[in-house]
Amino acid sequence: MQPLSFQIQKKLPGALGRAGVLSTPHGEIQTPAFVVVGTKGTVKALAPEQVASLGAQVVLANTYHLYLQPGDTRVRDQGGLHRMMHWDKPTMTDSGGFQAFSLGAAFGSNVSKIAKGNDAAQNSEEVTGDELEEPAGKLAKIDEDGVTFRSHIDGSEHKFTPERSIEIQHNLGAEMIFAFDECTSAQASYEYQKEALGRTHRWAERSLAAHKANGDAAQKQGLLGIVQGGRFKDLREESARFLAGLCPPAGGFDGFGIGGSFDKEDMYTAVGWVNAILPEDKPRHLLGIGEPADLFGGVENGCDLFDCVAPTRMARNGTIHTANGRINIFNAKFLDDLGPIDDGCACYTCSPRHGGAGYTRAYLAHLFRAKEMFAGTLASIHNLHFIIKLVADIRQSILDGTFTDFKTSFLARYYRK
Amino acid sequence: MQPLSFQIQKKLPGALGRAGVLSTPHGEIQTPAFVVVGTKGTVKALAPEQVASLGAQVVLANTYHLYLQPGDTRVRDQGGLHRMMHWDKPTMTDSGGFQAFSLGAAFGSNVSKIAKGNDAAQNSEEVTGDELEEPAGKLAKIDEDGVTFRSHIDGSEHKFTPERSIEIQHNLGAEMIFAFDECTSAQASYEYQKEALGRTHRWAERSLAAHKANGDAAQKQGLLGIVQGGRFKDLREESARFLAGLCPPAGGFDGFGIGGSFDKEDMYTAVGWVNAILPEDKPRHLLGIGEPADLFGGVENGCDLFDCVAPTRMARNGTIHTANGRINIFNAKFLDDLGPIDDGCACYTCSPRHGGAGYTRAYLAHLFRAKEMFAGTLASIHNLHFIIKLVADIRQSILDGTFTDFKTSFLARYYRK
Repeated sequence: MQPLSFQIQKKLPGALGRAGVLSTPHGEIQTPAFVVVGTKGTVKALAPEQVASLGAQVVLANTYHLYLQPGDTRVRDQGGLHRMMHWDKPTMTDSGGFQAFSLGAAFGSNVSKIAKGNDAAQNSEEVTGDELEEPAGKLAKIDEDGVTFRSHIDGSEHKFTPERSIEIQHNLGAEMIFAFDECTSAQASYEYQKEALGRTHRWAERSLAAHKANGDAAQKQGLLGIVQGGRFKDLREESARFLAGLCPPAGGFDGFGIGGSFDKEDMYTAVGWVNAILPEDKPRHLLGIGEPADLFGGVENGCDLFDCVAPTRMARNGTIHTANGRINIFNAKFLDDLGPIDDGCACYTCSPRHGGAGYTRAYLAHLFRAKEMFAGTLASIHNLHFIIKLVADIRQSILDGTFTDFKTSFLARYYRK
Repeated sequence: MQPLSFQIQKKLPGALGRAGVLSTPHGEIQTPAFVVVGTKGTVKALAPEQVASLGAQVVLANTYHLYLQPGDTRVRDQGGLHRMMHWDKPTMTDSGGFQAFSLGAAFGSNVSKIAKGNDAAQNSEEVTGDELEEPAGKLAKIDEDGVTFRSHIDGSEHKFTPERSIEIQHNLGAEMIFAFDECTSAQASYEYQKEALGRTHRWAERSLAAHKANGDAAQKQGLLGIVQGGRFKDLREESARFLAGLCPPAGGFDGFGIGGSFDKEDMYTAVGWVNAILPEDKPRHLLGIGEPADLFGGVENGCDLFDCVAPTRMARNGTIHTANGRINIFNAKFLDDLGPIDDGCACYTCSPRHGGAGYTRAYLAHLFRAKEMFAGTLASIHNLHFIIKLVADIRQSILDGTFTDFKTSFLARYYRK
């Protein structure tokens, strides 16, 4: 018995996209779905009930962070991620490799990982722009066995291997876990991408073997293999074929991740190459994507799950999604704006209560300027609800046969084109 | 028609304490009651629904802070404090004088207000120990007309007078507001206390006149006069008599505040002097008190309402109330403590859910070390619930005739005497 099962409900005509249902030991996920990031076993600024109430179906925690703090065995001893954080819907953990490179590492043995604007580091919930410009002392070494890195907390040295990553993820106990991979820079050369991809594939095999060797965990947790290959078509296709080949009918990977180290403009194309090859009956998670246009592109090209820190990180910085595009709540005009954050939005922050409207833009502008924690809470609720609902609406448009119209109208209004 | 009415339900035999019900335009308050502080129009780290769910009956916001940020007219334009923050139970605002002295001020024309350990400044939600040791540039001037001070935010100069304080509090719209007073240092000389007390009494008359002059506000908002006089019996009694004298049956103050500038050891005595004189049929608010022993002492000596930033400020620093005394959650042993924060506590943080226990001490210890905002939320919920329930239990013990037994057993366990 496999821990995950995926049923397609309807496909996009002439495209790879689909609406489906992913069944897990902690309940179903209606896909496409946006996965909320709870890096350290908490969705920043929110109680789990608030996370559930805004429509979240699944939370992703970061293996790297929980391994370092409080430690994966401490999470296990608290009953695993669900019990520790009191979240009883589905969870995922990533492999830890991504953060070991981007947070623990500046320069690998032969690959530069940190640069201003680095996609990988920018997609970490814990990194600020300032930190990105200060690579001194951040070192990670990649070898055939795994990645040696220094903790961003105390500088202590640690090593992740595929076996260790899987062991840690077994301790954390999420029902969707990822194979250990090397997430390369989008700027890396063909030669380096090819070399790294070979390593990622050997690590995929080792991750799968380590997972299956723990029969108890393999019953309860599904393992997703990660497709890499950068922006190169032959490498992406090779990676998809290789991972698909590790999925015989009786076992193998329970789904796939698609690693995000390609330039934005290549993304949809690269995702399409991959999803044309991956088995249709398993879910596909596009890692680290949360921009509205990219969510449409990802769904259209066959992806079912998306995660990104952007909605919550933007929220804590005062950048708010609205149907008419983003606003920066620090703009002085909002101090006197008595309207709701986003007219027509049904989230807790925007919805009417106590005989009045929702929280006003003026109140939110005040809370942000006053550096009140509740500012981050209200904005995070709204931004997460906005993105979760967007992906749910994309799903519904597939079921209704209105995807193209919905995409056109939403993007025109959001980007004011 | 008076906006507030107070009914005594039962008195403590042989003492000044009483259990009662205070009726306001936004509902009843069962007294004695602990008032939650929401300095800037938000209880730090909590949604209003969370505040209500932990048993809070009333929230106090700070006039000084809201006047500076976002501005009292902006609060008014958002429909007042209740509508702005979506809190539909009773609210209070203080007069602003306390913070104008302690945050805006270092040295008055003839009185030193800021010193390390200054009670007034320590009771402000917004001041850290570091700030207290850096009085440079903080200046307030007291004259007969009022207090001129500099904003702690941008250094701009402002003046509060009794009339201005009342006007601001009318704009904020809480149904319990306070007369403008001078909160002296506990260390001030008899001569200075006497001089300041004269000013406080003249300001009380001016506050009352300004309040009654706005008939609409006086219908909806009750004004509490503030008793001062430091640690000196004759001054305290003079103050109580003077303010009581401003309360003819047909009007005057709707209740009283008792200013906290006395040494801890003198407090209960001084409170007793005052409450033996104040009219029995009006509520009495002991300002800035939240330590368990002091709450028993305050109730026993005739106080009905208490407010303090301590429960939430302690919470954000990781100091947690338990029935067996305080714990510092940063203690390393708590990283592996799978027990609840406070065994037997029924707050959201401690109570069982999802088939398991509440949040564990281990999880809270992790969240604090990881600097997660949810740490402050969970600890604030618990500490506020603890203190609110303590005062509610004190009330019940008066009704049940078990006050002395309850006081003895609670304090013995809490202080481990």
